Formats: sequence, C-alpha cells, structure tokens
Amino acid sequence: MSETGENRQILLTPGPLTTSDTVKQAMLRDWGSRDSAFIEMTARLRQRLTAIAHGEETHSCVPVQGSGTFAVEATLGTLVPRDNGKLLILINGAYGRRMEKICHTMGRACTTYETAEDVPPDPNRVARLLEEDTTITHVAVVHCETTSGILNPIEAIAEIVAKANRKLIVDAMSTFGALPIDLRTMTADAIIASANKCLEGVPGVGYAIIQKDALAAAEGNALSLSLDLHDQASYMDRTSQWRFTPPTHVLAALDQALNELDAEGGVTARGARYTANCGVLVSGLRDLGFETFLPDLLQAPIIVTVRMPSDSGFNFQELYDTLNAQGIVLYPGAVTQEKSFRVGCIGRLGDADMKRALHAIRNALDDMGIPREGLKPAA
Amino acid sequence: MSETGENRQILLTPGPLTTSDTVKQAMLRDWGSRDSAFIEMTARLRQRLTAIAHGEETHSCVPVQGSGTFAVEATLGTLVPRDNGKLLILINGAYGRRMEKICHTMGRACTTYETAEDVPPDPNRVARLLEEDTTITHVAVVHCETTSGILNPIEAIAEIVAKANRKLIVDAMSTFGALPIDLRTMTADAIIASANKCLEGVPGVGYAIIQKDALAAAEGNALSLSLDLHDQASYMDRTSQWRFTPPTHVLAALDQALNELDAEGGVTARGARYTANCGVLVSGLRDLGFETFLPDLLQAPIIVTVRMPSDSGFNFQELYDTLNAQGIVLYPGAVTQEKSFRVGCIGRLGDADMKRALHAIRNALDDMGIPREGLKPAA
Repeated sequence: MSETGENRQILLTPGPLTTSDTVKQAMLRDWGSRDSAFIEMTARLRQRLTAIAHGEETHSCVPVQGSGTFAVEATLGTLVPRDNGKLLILINGAYGRRMEKICHTMGRACTTYETAEDVPPDPNRVARLLEEDTTITHVAVVHCETTSGILNPIEAIAEIVAKANRKLIVDAMSTFGALPIDLRTMTADAIIASANKCLEGVPGVGYAIIQKDALAAAEGNALSLSLDLHDQASYMDRTSQWRFTPPTHVLAALDQALNELDAEGGVTARGARYTANCGVLVSGLRDLGFETFLPDLLQAPIIVTVRMPSDSGFNFQELYDTLNAQGIVLYPGAVTQEKSFRVGCIGRLGDADMKRALHAIRNALDDMGIPREGLKPAA
Repeated sequence: MSETGENRQILLTPGPLTTSDTVKQAMLRDWGSRDSAFIEMTARLRQRLTAIAHGEETHSCVPVQGSGTFAVEATLGTLVPRDNGKLLILINGAYGRRMEKICHTMGRACTTYETAEDVPPDPNRVARLLEEDTTITHVAVVHCETTSGILNPIEAIAEIVAKANRKLIVDAMSTFGALPIDLRTMTADAIIASANKCLEGVPGVGYAIIQKDALAAAEGNALSLSLDLHDQASYMDRTSQWRFTPPTHVLAALDQALNELDAEGGVTARGARYTANCGVLVSGLRDLGFETFLPDLLQAPIIVTVRMPSDSGFNFQELYDTLNAQGIVLYPGAVTQEKSFRVGCIGRLGDADMKRALHAIRNALDDMGIPREGLKPAA
C-alpha cells in the first residue's frame, strides 16, 4: 500500500473507495468502443469476473453501465418473471429495503422477511416461509449489509433455497473479490456486484454473474431496454461489444484492478488484508473507548458501525471535518436503531492507513478534550 | 490541440471520443461521494450543464449514471405519462428507432413518423400528425442522427409542437455543447445528452435538462427506480448528493471538460472547430475520390457518412486496420440504404489531426494501388 499520490484520499467508506495510482493511471488512455483491443478487454473482463466466483462452467458475467443499484435492478427485472414470479427479500438494512422498493416500482410481486439490523436472517425461517408460500419463485439476500456491516449467511440460505427448488439472487456488492463465493458448491442464479468495492476499481459499472439457463430463459422479461441483462448478454455473446456506449475508462481501470487482485494473491489474500484492517481498526477504536454496533461474530471485514458516544465532549461533525482536512474520509451512520457512524476497511488501504486514521482520531479527541483514558460508553 | 500523450488515440467516431490529457488526468484522484467537495462538484455540474442550454430560469439538469441510452430511456420513462401519454417519434436513423424500442419495452404508447436516412422530418407533416392524432402528448426528435450524420431541424419542430400544445423531447446526445440550443427561445420539455460527446468528457454519465414543471409533475411515473429522473432530481435538490453511487472519476473529468469548453470560448468556438474539422475532412475525402452520403446542407459537423467506393482495389477492412495501427480509429457505416463507413469530426481533435488522418488514408490507398487521380465513384 505504498501509493503516495499527492491527492491520495483515505476513503473509510463503503465506496467509492481509495484505489491504487496504477488503477487510476489505466484511465489515461482513450478507447474506441468498437475497436478490437477494447472488444478483447470486454471479453477478458467477463471471463475474469466469472472466474472469481468459480462460475466458468455454469454462469455468465453480464456487465451493465451505472452503479451497483442499476445492476441489482437489472438482475431482478431480468430474472424474476413478470407474470408469475415472486421474490422473497431477506431484509436487515437499506440494501434489502431498496430491493423491495425496486420490486414495487417495477411492479414485480415480492414479499419480505425482515430482521433487526444486527440480526442475520435465520435459514430455518426462510425454509418455513418457502414452504408456506409456494408462489415464491426467487429469494434475494445481501451478503454484507453495509448499513451495519453485518455478514449474512448466504451459503446456509443457498442450501435451503436450493432444497426448496427456488432460485437465489445474491447482492454481493460489498464483498465480491474479498469474501469467497464458490458457485461450484453454492447454488445461486445470480451474484451481483460492482467494480468499485472490493475489486478496487472505480465506480461506473456493475455486473451480475448469472446461471446460463436462467439467463437464456429470461428473454423478453425485462421492462427496460437499458437494464435488460438478457439482451445485453446476447449482444455481447455475439459481438463482445456493448449494446450502448460503455464506460471505457472505468473498464480499463477495472481490468488493471483485476491484475492487481491477481498480483495480491486473489480473493484469499485480499480478504486477509481487509480482515487485518478491520482487526486493527476495531481494536484501536475500542482502545479509544468507542463501541462497535455489531458483535464480532457478525462483523464482516468490510465496514464497521461505531455507536455514537454519549460523551458530552464528543462531536462527530468536528471529528469528520478534522479528518477530512487530512484526506481521511469517515462515513455517516445508517442503522436506524441508534445514532452511529461508520468506518470502512476496504479499498487500497493497509495497516499503515488504519493506524494513521486511528492516530488522527485520537488527535481529534484530544482537541475535543476527551481524556486519554477514553470516551464514556455509548448511551 | 497540442496534447501528445504517448497513447493518444485519434478516435474518428461518434464516441467515446479523443479527450484531452488534462480531462483524463482529472480522474487521478479518488472522491468520497458524500464528501462536501464532491457534493459541490455535483451542484456545479448541474448548474453549468443547464447554463449551456440557457435553461437556468426554466429547467433543471438531472444527471444519471450510464450511457446516453440510459438517459434517453430515463427521460422517456419519467416524462411520458404511463397511462394517458403517447409519444410521436420522428425517425430517420438508429437512435429514433431505439426510442421506439424503448417505448415498446416499457409499454409506453408511441407512434412514429419515419423518413429516409437522408431526409429530415418535415415540420408541416409533424403539424398534420399532431392535428390528426389528438392523443399524442409528446414528440421526440434526434438533433443529429449519427447513423448518417444528418442535422434535424429541431427549432422548426419545436415551434410546431409548442403551437399544437404538445411537449418536445430532444435527443441532443451528439450535438450538445457544439451546436447551440437556447431554451429561452426554443420550447422543449427535455434536452438529453451525455458527457462523452461534444463536451469531450469520458463516458459513464448522461443527463437530461428538464423543464421544472414537467419534472415536478412526473412523480411516480417511472417504472424503474434507477432510471427515475424525478426521484433522482428530488433527492439531488434536497442534498446535492446522488441517490446511488455516482461515477466520481467520470464526473471529475466532466467538470474539467467544462472548464476546457469555457476556455475554448464556449459552444460557439467548439462548434466552429468541429465545423472546420468537418470541412477539412469532407473536402480532403472528396479530393481522394470519396463521396459523402449526405448533401452538405444536411450534414451536421459531427460525423460524416462516406459512401463505400465501388472501386475494386478498395478494401475498407484494410483501410481500417492500417489506420488503427497508427492510433486512428474509423467507424463502420450504419445507414441501411447502402454500404458506407463513417468518419467523425468531434472530440479533442483539430486541423492537424484531420490532415494526419487524410494523409494516412491517402497512404493506405497508395498501398491498395488506388491511383493518385482518385477512387472511382461509388456504386
């Protein structure tokens, strides 16, 4: 993590994230989108992304322009049948709730199973729900809900869903590339993610890795041309070109980001770095008197929700501004149960960055007059 | 046009285009999407884009992630009423046809008025169509159809549409920033464009400049969450933030591209450069014996369709490959009436680039054994 660009930002957020200088430098060239070098890049990206999830035999990667939400909407709109489909959405945060909103907007039938933001869905309860409502065709789950940072048990859920002969759609936006997903052993119709999370690319493109038969069966199902992943995939399979202008620079950055993932040692090594980042961060924050929202067992090594200290001397806006002036960016809280803020552990960041952030936080606490023995417990 | 990056590509295409080194260098920094500096950039971009069309008093710019087609679909899906709306689409190329496909996919009522690819729509015929079908609520027209390069008479059409008390939606994708659009004198509910055409940004974001009352009236109309411009605008108006992860680097490049548009002298100066490019290109190609598909009066200074020479010595693939090896990228033809190829005149390119391209074409013709007196006329 030796990049030292003069404007280097330490983005402790759920994304967009800190990327390497070399990833950003990959954007210093213009590409003709119909040109053979770019066409090869598109084919290579699809192949590489599928391979990360070990889906080469069974799945196809369909990239789509836009943010991760565009990819989620495109996947739901393409795969959940318009007429007789029904989606069960497992909700314990904003991204589950957003899938519900997408279904309502598109007019797709859905039902929900919601747990508290610090409670993962219970696979046995999912089994009962699928038994009780035989009209449910698909189940959607978020791998890591960055609302809190909770890790949801997608493998156990996948097993239940497959046993009930339903289809699983996984929003792996904030975990893909850092936490293992193995489509040889886990049954899922789609894994959705984007370039700018754990792959450490820049934002502007998402993708779904879709089971080939499910994709083939989805022709004509989408109510959107731009977000029709069947149409996108058919065209790409024939031509290796994009139907509509691709974000060429963003894709070149992603290609370089995948080189750097390989160089680091793949998903295992990246996950290990993030886990180390998370460990340093959590223990450092606890030393300062902060408390985490989640118990360690439920904490994904992606982003940490910190309970807002009740200490009267503590001022989050002041902490945020002080760190921001040093190029260290914290993130507002998102859990609805209590006041909090968030600190991310992903992106092109390592041990030194985490320690630098902790040091900056300690200095800011000093300025607020918080004693060295630490903050008072959260309310 | 002095940029000389080592990988500089001369993209003679309808986009993505050649951008300046400084536009690309603006992507060398990571931005937190909730951070104040980025929030300011979003507000500034919306204001600047609206000002280019002189819509400050009446219109609001709503940017949306993705390609230009995403922005077109988002605009049609947001503005054309789901229940009692009906769109008349003026078609003389692929982008008009694509709007028809979008309406069919979304289930929006539409009708079309199609002319040949070298024939602009007749405003009087539009007037009659609006008189005959009183259920038509909106009219859509493409400013420059890059299928052929034809310039459509949007001002005359706007006048007819306004007189008939209907609403106009203009796809100005390939002209915005180079050909003047003045919303103080031309009535239109929406002007749609993207970052990577005449603004000379990089691809990954589009936008619609929408009449404020029309936008306010569109709440709940879209069948897509990602492509709901009312929802996007409401959220941005409240927060200056994006609902979903923005393509931060692409937007930073657009901000820099707008600086360079200003520095060049705005729309007038940019249009003048493209017009000069087009003139050099067309006269140079004619000197070599090529013929243009369109008469000069209908030719927009954006992209030129060249009729495929019937000369037996001429081989387009060889021409394409030879130029491509020199970093000069031509574009395949798209008109359906005859065989052709296209040569663009937009992007960060000037006189020297056009001459370099013409010189490279002449050399390639030499290699094919085409005599110096030029090609035989097209079939």
